[in-house]
Amino acid sequence: MTILRVALAQVDLTVGDLAANSEMVLARTAEAAAAGAQLVVFPEMTLTGYPPEDLALRPSFRAASIATLHAVATSLAERGLADVGVVVGYLDEDAGSRNAAAFLLGGAVVARYFKHHLPNYGVFDEDRYFKAGSDLPVIRFGGVDIGLTICEDVWQDGGPFSAAAAARVGLLLNINGSPYERDKNHVRLSLVQRRAKEADATVVYVNQVGGQDELVFDGDSFVVSPNGTLLARAPQFVEKLFYVELDLPEATGTSAGGDSPITIRRFTAPLPPRALTESSSTPPLGSSEAPALAIAPGLADEAEVWQALVLGTRDYVRKNGFASVVIAMSGGIDSAVVAAVAADAIGGENVHGVAMPSAYSSEHSISDAVELARRLGGPLRTVNIEPMVRAFVSALELTGLAEENVQARVRGTTLMGLSNQHGHLVLATGNKSEISVGYSTIYGDAVGGFAPLKDVPKSLVWELARWRNAAAERNGEQPPIPENSIAKPPSAELRPGQLDSDSLPDYDELDRLLARYVDEDAGLEELVAAGFDRDLATRVSRMTDAAEWKRRQYPPGPKISLKAFGRDRRLPITNRWRESRP
Amino acid sequence: MTILRVALAQVDLTVGDLAANSEMVLARTAEAAAAGAQLVVFPEMTLTGYPPEDLALRPSFRAASIATLHAVATSLAERGLADVGVVVGYLDEDAGSRNAAAFLLGGAVVARYFKHHLPNYGVFDEDRYFKAGSDLPVIRFGGVDIGLTICEDVWQDGGPFSAAAAARVGLLLNINGSPYERDKNHVRLSLVQRRAKEADATVVYVNQVGGQDELVFDGDSFVVSPNGTLLARAPQFVEKLFYVELDLPEATGTSAGGDSPITIRRFTAPLPPRALTESSSTPPLGSSEAPALAIAPGLADEAEVWQALVLGTRDYVRKNGFASVVIAMSGGIDSAVVAAVAADAIGGENVHGVAMPSAYSSEHSISDAVELARRLGGPLRTVNIEPMVRAFVSALELTGLAEENVQARVRGTTLMGLSNQHGHLVLATGNKSEISVGYSTIYGDAVGGFAPLKDVPKSLVWELARWRNAAAERNGEQPPIPENSIAKPPSAELRPGQLDSDSLPDYDELDRLLARYVDEDAGLEELVAAGFDRDLATRVSRMTDAAEWKRRQYPPGPKISLKAFGRDRRLPITNRWRESRP
Repeated sequence: MTILRVALAQVDLTVGDLAANSEMVLARTAEAAAAGAQLVVFPEMTLTGYPPEDLALRPSFRAASIATLHAVATSLAERGLADVGVVVGYLDEDAGSRNAAAFLLGGAVVARYFKHHLPNYGVFDEDRYFKAGSDLPVIRFGGVDIGLTICEDVWQDGGPFSAAAAARVGLLLNINGSPYERDKNHVRLSLVQRRAKEADATVVYVNQVGGQDELVFDGDSFVVSPNGTLLARAPQFVEKLFYVELDLPEATGTSAGGDSPITIRRFTAPLPPRALTESSSTPPLGSSEAPALAIAPGLADEAEVWQALVLGTRDYVRKNGFASVVIAMSGGIDSAVVAAVAADAIGGENVHGVAMPSAYSSEHSISDAVELARRLGGPLRTVNIEPMVRAFVSALELTGLAEENVQARVRGTTLMGLSNQHGHLVLATGNKSEISVGYSTIYGDAVGGFAPLKDVPKSLVWELARWRNAAAERNGEQPPIPENSIAKPPSAELRPGQLDSDSLPDYDELDRLLARYVDEDAGLEELVAAGFDRDLATRVSRMTDAAEWKRRQYPPGPKISLKAFGRDRRLPITNRWRESRP
Repeated sequence: MTILRVALAQVDLTVGDLAANSEMVLARTAEAAAAGAQLVVFPEMTLTGYPPEDLALRPSFRAASIATLHAVATSLAERGLADVGVVVGYLDEDAGSRNAAAFLLGGAVVARYFKHHLPNYGVFDEDRYFKAGSDLPVIRFGGVDIGLTICEDVWQDGGPFSAAAAARVGLLLNINGSPYERDKNHVRLSLVQRRAKEADATVVYVNQVGGQDELVFDGDSFVVSPNGTLLARAPQFVEKLFYVELDLPEATGTSAGGDSPITIRRFTAPLPPRALTESSSTPPLGSSEAPALAIAPGLADEAEVWQALVLGTRDYVRKNGFASVVIAMSGGIDSAVVAAVAADAIGGENVHGVAMPSAYSSEHSISDAVELARRLGGPLRTVNIEPMVRAFVSALELTGLAEENVQARVRGTTLMGLSNQHGHLVLATGNKSEISVGYSTIYGDAVGGFAPLKDVPKSLVWELARWRNAAAERNGEQPPIPENSIAKPPSAELRPGQLDSDSLPDYDELDRLLARYVDEDAGLEELVAAGFDRDLATRVSRMTDAAEWKRRQYPPGPKISLKAFGRDRRLPITNRWRESRP
């Protein structure tokens, strides 16, 4: 057996920023080498970021990605890191665009792998962008045969994991851009456990961490033994190098693939790995310089969702070049939770609240907003929107719904004015329940660059608020969300005495219905069979069917569910289908 | 030889409206039968409309599509049309979701075909939605062997057209949902000519006509002989039945496919076709009741684009349930052309203009708007936006760009107020050049349900204006677009004396550059090699790279180019790639 010390680089990437991503690879490899690592494994499409979408179609971007890969290999050697094996993902071009991984050593690219299985469902469109590979490279490094695979390859029967068994690979690397989704980490682990047994090899699964538009990557990198035992697991939502020492079988394989359609290509690393015991400066695994990765405990559902929202929001703000946000603070639960998420993401002092009372606003709408801003430690500005609203209403003779909407739009224009003047990003405060059924005003409350609660049903908004406050209390901190914002009945306050319950069913029931109708594509008859009232199901499905245009106009938000509105769900705007009209 | 009279049903569909689409099939089949047709061929996904996008993932929608297919077969027989062969497209479910065609006769489904080649590029995402078929049904009908194929099947080598040759098919039907794109009709024809020769069969190519969100289907249905000669071609952008009489070889084939991977399945129609000479009431082909389809002359480029914009706008307005539109009339060329397109689409009386002068508006901005509305015969309302703008600027202390933007947003809110109050759809007036480089205000001029010029570069906007006016003059009508709107230099009029040329390069050069950079994915070095100034190419590419968020917020508009912003081009919002930073 041979012992290899491996660093799992659970890192955050920026799409399109080849310079920053490659500098990160160099810095993290130096850090890993100092901790005695002999092999560092980075996530899928490390250099380009993932998903690059149509950037993958630009020949100049593909050429830049390949040039960056070779520059990284050279720079590693120049920085004295030639004897550290480095696995990075990148975009290649070889008879087509390729989702690729490379094994770097000795200042050169030792082997390349092109992803075999290209997901093309949900948030994935890889059939548009990539050509599938059909080879499995096996690199003999330090006496161990190491195979490379990428992400979806692990989800397929008869794929490279079967070929790896035939090749008698000792260590199989699987690099990922696998977005967070509630409860998904259980699925990932059990699948990899099965594949490890099939391949009869140790599997190192490395996933990126960070937000990219609607996607939040949660990390959750781990290592599984050939018999399927979970050996180590990184915490979710943490950017860090994690170290393991793996006891791996001596390489014996010579097969070129047998009867598998996958061709095995064998490579020999041009250098032995940096010796673990060579230098007295190599810290022992388990020391503070090279902490050993244990099995991190799983997070509770609310904690996991909260961290996904915080990371998604932080990265969207930061990667788009903003340092502060502005939020309409109505005193309600949605804006309070959005502001608390933002405060956790970028600091309360960077969360600028705006209270925008109108003639229909309640007393507590201001007092609760003031209390929220006080707890978060951010500035609050009050803008009386009555003069602007009156000017529109009288110039245009608006009544009814048109008058209600103009209030929301004056607020939207106010937020954008402050955004343009002061450089804050506007966060929209709508939740998934409202957005599903179209209970929002285009260019009004739908204004914003990012919508942290876009994929969070209203009932979960309340749960998150209670969870976040309880977590603060456990830590002896002040709960960020005013209790009154949690307790009071929700209202848009666009006409006197208005309550959400005037227009919408009870949120608990609505959310259970939407989970079936939106996330699971259940039909009306299935809803009725599942126990929902037919009239209610008819009404909610029709509202949802008709709201596609409004949903399209809503800003992106972090995806946490099976079907988020955005890349996941693409309905025609011009669509006469109504579930309730067979 | 056997003579078959075939009706090419170049019809308009509505996505999701199974009831309306199937009623259309029944009515058009009755019309065709009265004209003596023995076979009526409808476009791809006739019953569901195309593209259905995520509706195809709903089991209840698939079940409804199949039920509708059988109901149509039954209703045809009930209406005395049992002996007319009817080919319709629909969504099937058979070990997966299928883009399917069916041959109906005698009140039953005689044969089904599942599309083999699923396009997954540009506006197409069929790998997400459908499972590919691998059989070629051949239906013996009136002594002729008829093969069915769908759309992209014709674009592939070695596909069903090769199998059709082995099967000795006499007539090959190809039903389409092929969107308009400038110059594409030449490509379609030459491809089908090649395939007809390969298949050694007459090919009937039927395409839908009409607008569906960003897509405009132009019809352009045609018939090609086995030696590749174009026999008949329908005019573009016209919804109608077109008749041909085809002299077809007697069926002799018995093969089940030979060495092709495609299985040939043979069916025999349960009835002979309705006899052409049986009834004295059958009108002869070429009579006014059964006009023979000749080869329609091609359209000039401007005429083709204009008709695409008009049809796309008309169908978007109508299919989304609107009867009128409201447009900001600034006196400039863009709003004048949008209004003229809208007037051609839904009648000038339904085009509501709003002039919204601010402190920076020129005299002619009002007078040209008044003249435009007069020529179109629609109402014009003037709303002085100064009170609203002043209220925002003073309440929020806005300066510079923030003040410029608030003017645009007050206009947007005004348009939406009038839309909500009176039920008009707002048309946005931006053009592709501005939208490419981000020269627009989110929630300001970007407000609207549809943007007719979204894919029209500014230089083409001027060409279209001149062409439309000249066309009117040729017909002895008043040109719709005021000459002053065409002649004056373009300005956003958001600060004193502002001109587009202060911020943007000359539009002719900009448009040539964008055509390479956006439509063809050319890199910076290619632009320079093509003769563009490096500084200009750097500046324009950077503006374009940075404007993705604004483009995403722009309403949909009719696609006329290789790469329209929308379904065609999907860049990350969070994207640090800059073409000019290698």
